[in-house]
Amino acid sequence: MEKRVAVLQGDGIGPEVTAAAVKVLEVVARRFNHIFHFNYGSIGGEAIDQFNNPLPEETIALCESSDAVLLGAVGGPKWDQNPSELRPEKGLLAIRKHFDLFANLRPVKAVPSLLQASPLKEDIVQEVDMMIVRELTGGIYFGQPSRKTEASAVDTLVYTREEIERIVDKAFELARLRKGKVTSVDKANVLESSKLWREVVEEKRKGYPDIEVEHQLVDSAAMKLITNPAAFDVIVTENMFGDILSDEASVITGSLGLLPSASVRSDGFGLYEPVHGSAPDVAGKGLANPAAAILSAAMMLRYSFDMETEAAAIEEAVNTVFEDGYFTTDLAGRTDRAHSTKEWTDKVIDEL
Amino acid sequence: MEKRVAVLQGDGIGPEVTAAAVKVLEVVARRFNHIFHFNYGSIGGEAIDQFNNPLPEETIALCESSDAVLLGAVGGPKWDQNPSELRPEKGLLAIRKHFDLFANLRPVKAVPSLLQASPLKEDIVQEVDMMIVRELTGGIYFGQPSRKTEASAVDTLVYTREEIERIVDKAFELARLRKGKVTSVDKANVLESSKLWREVVEEKRKGYPDIEVEHQLVDSAAMKLITNPAAFDVIVTENMFGDILSDEASVITGSLGLLPSASVRSDGFGLYEPVHGSAPDVAGKGLANPAAAILSAAMMLRYSFDMETEAAAIEEAVNTVFEDGYFTTDLAGRTDRAHSTKEWTDKVIDEL
Ligand SMILES: CC(C)[C@H](C(=O)O)[C@@H](O)C(=O)O
Ligand SMILES: CC(C)[C@H](C(=O)O)[C@@H](O)C(=O)O
Repeated sequence: MEKRVAVLQGDGIGPEVTAAAVKVLEVVARRFNHIFHFNYGSIGGEAIDQFNNPLPEETIALCESSDAVLLGAVGGPKWDQNPSELRPEKGLLAIRKHFDLFANLRPVKAVPSLLQASPLKEDIVQEVDMMIVRELTGGIYFGQPSRKTEASAVDTLVYTREEIERIVDKAFELARLRKGKVTSVDKANVLESSKLWREVVEEKRKGYPDIEVEHQLVDSAAMKLITNPAAFDVIVTENMFGDILSDEASVITGSLGLLPSASVRSDGFGLYEPVHGSAPDVAGKGLANPAAAILSAAMMLRYSFDMETEAAAIEEAVNTVFEDGYFTTDLAGRTDRAHSTKEWTDKVIDEL
Repeated sequence: MEKRVAVLQGDGIGPEVTAAAVKVLEVVARRFNHIFHFNYGSIGGEAIDQFNNPLPEETIALCESSDAVLLGAVGGPKWDQNPSELRPEKGLLAIRKHFDLFANLRPVKAVPSLLQASPLKEDIVQEVDMMIVRELTGGIYFGQPSRKTEASAVDTLVYTREEIERIVDKAFELARLRKGKVTSVDKANVLESSKLWREVVEEKRKGYPDIEVEHQLVDSAAMKLITNPAAFDVIVTENMFGDILSDEASVITGSLGLLPSASVRSDGFGLYEPVHGSAPDVAGKGLANPAAAILSAAMMLRYSFDMETEAAAIEEAVNTVFEDGYFTTDLAGRTDRAHSTKEWTDKVIDEL
């Protein structure tokens, strides 16, 4: 197959980790007989510097002419004092909305060789294997009115039935390919939008009689993610709850540095990015952990290009490298030697 | 001193744990020469059963004629299918709003003898000693419009400057009596209400030059509560974020069963209740852990009656009982013998 990939490297360690992912994708292309075209665009802080816009028109055009987007990371202290329209993260919010990337998928899985880095006790996290499905283009992130005066401020949480339906369907479909369980998280004892959310889940479940469904209040879910995270399979929730819970979940296994994410819409187009930030303090030193970016590339192959075998090959290679005891600085911990971004990426390529 | 306490036992284990707290308060009254009048009222599920109202007028009148309120717990499967106006938790929301109990204080402190029950590694939680200050009468819990149709639903997050000011002041005052640090949690990169929140914190800090201040985004705070909870002193945040983060924080030390809470307003009037729920499955069996209710009574002495010595005496007694290895079923874990609610309460009374 021939595919066009827009690469938005972004800020901090973004360029290093996306370069590693591209290198891996090139090896996959050769091994499985595909052609991937990589075209580069600006986003975030560096786009503000160059174009005075965290999501320039050129970048939108590039993504529109691509089959998927690979993103590094955005942000850094340099732009922290900027007015809100000229902040790196506005680029992220804008690209999600512009391309209607309503489904944010964030898998969290325990990696045996990394459990020592988990803040939780090993017996609690060792069986963790969940997928958080966060609604990404609705809710309080985009609802109107959203404004502020000297005296007060207001934000609006709105959901239409259709917006809820499509993300709930996504969660059910994913659960079918996994452990067959969906936990829907809401605050139905307080929010009207959560009551609608729960209603839609109750309707939709009829179409997926093979899937186990549970409802959990967001406060209770925040506890269970710590006390019994292995009980989850697919978690589906609205934008803001998803923001909080997915970040909470990202630290429980001790492997934040290697978590990938996908933000997709229904036709297969999607944006893939590591969960970690731009880590400006380690940028440019060859210290960055490229695992999350490489695993995001694997998700791209799976969800946008329908290349399951290729995706699994990357994931297996990454796993083997960890099991063989090769780590970048962030994870090396008490073990022997930390490998550079390049060395570590080459290990993955050797495994492929 | 002479004080009137409204006791709202509520559902499930509510009656047992409040009875234990009242017993302890009676001992404190004798020992320190106070007179406490206890008057009982209905709330939650049992109030729905008796009065068809989760917060009957009689209860409001009782609380209005009291100096503080001691609450057990509300809720249970019996009322789970009720329409939203006839659900136990509506009683809670209504009493908070009616009495303008805008400041919810939830301390979380590691108890050495209970760390084995923590899901987190001991070195991460052993130094934990934080106070979560949650805004309790504003935000998306009470904002209008809040409504739902077949096709869509909306909730509204509103804050006035005054609402933010008073809770932020509360946090600064508490930090002064503690470790001198305030972490304000918001989502200022997305929400207008959070921008106003952050602005108010920046203004208020000028009045507390001795206090260290940091801002944290809610997603990042959800991570830090797990990776480095000991770094927090006072956390101040809006209603919904506070709901999620305080529940998350409540499980990290393994001592959810003994966490107290206070919901107060500026004149000293307040409502005190355990963080745990009504646990209908163990109700009436003498198995309930009364520690959280007893420690809530201690908070009442401190914050509503200005009886610091008396409050500290209760806290010390509870601590000693734990250190001596006396636990109720929920916490007994692998240790020798589990004590009943009554036995355990009597141990605390002996210590007093
Ligand atoms: C940067 C920020 C706007 C963004 C969000 O809240 O969605 C980030 O936290 C994320 O989760 O991707
Ligand atoms: C019962 C519910 C409405 C309540 C809340 O969300 O405030 C509870 O979770 C709490 O934290 O006291």
